[in-house]
Amino acid sequence: MPDQNDIIYGVHPVAEALKNPRRRIYSLKASRNAADRLATEIAVRGVVPEIVHPNVLDRRLGPEAVHQGLLMEASPLDQPRLDQIDKSGTVVLLDQVTDPHNVGAILRSCAAFNVTALVATSRHSPEATAVLFKSASGAYEHVPFVKVTNLARAMAELKECGFRVLGLDSDAVLDISEADHTAPVAIVLGAEGKGLRQLTRESCDSLVKLSFDGPIRSLNVSNACAVALYALRR
Amino acid sequence: MPDQNDIIYGVHPVAEALKNPRRRIYSLKASRNAADRLATEIAVRGVVPEIVHPNVLDRRLGPEAVHQGLLMEASPLDQPRLDQIDKSGTVVLLDQVTDPHNVGAILRSCAAFNVTALVATSRHSPEATAVLFKSASGAYEHVPFVKVTNLARAMAELKECGFRVLGLDSDAVLDISEADHTAPVAIVLGAEGKGLRQLTRESCDSLVKLSFDGPIRSLNVSNACAVALYALRR
Repeated sequence: MPDQNDIIYGVHPVAEALKNPRRRIYSLKASRNAADRLATEIAVRGVVPEIVHPNVLDRRLGPEAVHQGLLMEASPLDQPRLDQIDKSGTVVLLDQVTDPHNVGAILRSCAAFNVTALVATSRHSPEATAVLFKSASGAYEHVPFVKVTNLARAMAELKECGFRVLGLDSDAVLDISEADHTAPVAIVLGAEGKGLRQLTRESCDSLVKLSFDGPIRSLNVSNACAVALYALRR
Repeated sequence: MPDQNDIIYGVHPVAEALKNPRRRIYSLKASRNAADRLATEIAVRGVVPEIVHPNVLDRRLGPEAVHQGLLMEASPLDQPRLDQIDKSGTVVLLDQVTDPHNVGAILRSCAAFNVTALVATSRHSPEATAVLFKSASGAYEHVPFVKVTNLARAMAELKECGFRVLGLDSDAVLDISEADHTAPVAIVLGAEGKGLRQLTRESCDSLVKLSFDGPIRSLNVSNACAVALYALRR
C-alpha cells in the first residue's frame, strides 16, 4: 500500500515544500492574502492555487490548526535508510519521543544546527504529521528523517560507522561540555519523565547530562535538544 | 475585582503547587492512581483529595488537556513588581510572545537556569494559564513572573538598576557568546516571525544573535530562549 499524501499547512511549511523539487504537489488551497504572501514561491514553482475562504480550511483542518490560509496536498518525501546518510556530521536519535509538537521543534533545531539526520522509531498519523510539519516550520524539507524499527540496532550501526553515541541522561556524571568531540557524535534523547530505556542506555558509548543550578532541573525535550546541539557544536 | 482562582492540572504542576506554601488550595480532584502517585505531597500538605474517575476531568478540561488524573483549584500567586526582584541574576523579558505552550516552556527553562524573573506584558485567559502551568511543568511555582504594562519602561528600569539589556535579533552583528557578561544581563525575546518591535529594539543596550550554519536559521522561541540562557551562563 503506498503512503498517504502529506497534508501541509502554514506559511513556512508550505513555502519550503513549494521550493522542494522532491515534492510532487497535488493541490494548493490558499486564501487571497496567503496566495499574495507566497506569490513568488508559487510563481517559481508554477502551481495554480485554488483561492478559498479561510473558513474552508478551518472546516477541513479543525480549530487547533494554525493554517495561515494555506493547505497543500503533496507526495510524501522519500527518506534515506540509516546506511545512506552522511557519516561526518551530528545525528540525533529519539527514544520514544512522539509528541508531534516536540518532534517538529526538534527537527527545526536540527535544521538550524545543520544536523545530518534525525532518527526515530515512531510513526505518526497523517493529522499528527501535519502538526509536526507546522512545528518544524519548513525544516522537514531539509533534514533527513530516518525511521527505524529498532533503536538499539540503529545505535550499533552508527557506532560501526565511527559515530560516538551519547545518551542524554539527567543522572549522568559527565557534563555534555566534557564529552569527547573527536569523532562524529550521535546524541540520543528520551521521552520526558521516562528518559532513556534500559537497552538504549546500555547501547550508548557515554551518558552525558545538561547541568542546571535552578529549582527545576530538566527542560522540555525540544529545549534540551537545542541546548545539547549548541553545547556539542562548541 | 479579585483575580480568579488558578486551575492547575498534570502531575508536575500539581505536585509543585502542593509544595508551595504561598498557594491556598481550595480543591483537589484526583483519580485513584494519581492520588497514590502524589501520596507523599498530598499527605505533607494535609489536603484531602476528592477521588474521581478520570472521565470527570476529561469532561471538565476538554480533550486537549493532559491532566494525568489531577485537577487543583488554588489561589493565584502574588507576583512581585519589577522593583522588588533580585538585581544580581539574569532576567528574561518577552516582547509579545503569548503562546502559552511557549511561555510555559520558557518558564521551565528559566527555573532550570536559575533566572531571577520572567517579565512580560501579556495576560492569559484562565484556560491559557492552565496550559502555561502544564507546559511549565511546575516551574511557575518557582520563577517570579512580573507583568508590566510597558516593556520599554521596564527595560529602562532594569538599566537603571545596573542590568545590561540584550535583545535577541537574528539580524544582529554580535554573536551572543561575544556579549559583555560583566553586569547582570536582561535578555529580550520577540515573537516568532515578527521579532522585536522597533521601540523594544531601540531600548536595548546591544542586539545579539544566535549563529546557525544550517538551512533554516531560526529556532522555536522557547528553544531560542534555552540556548540563549545556556550561552549566557558560560
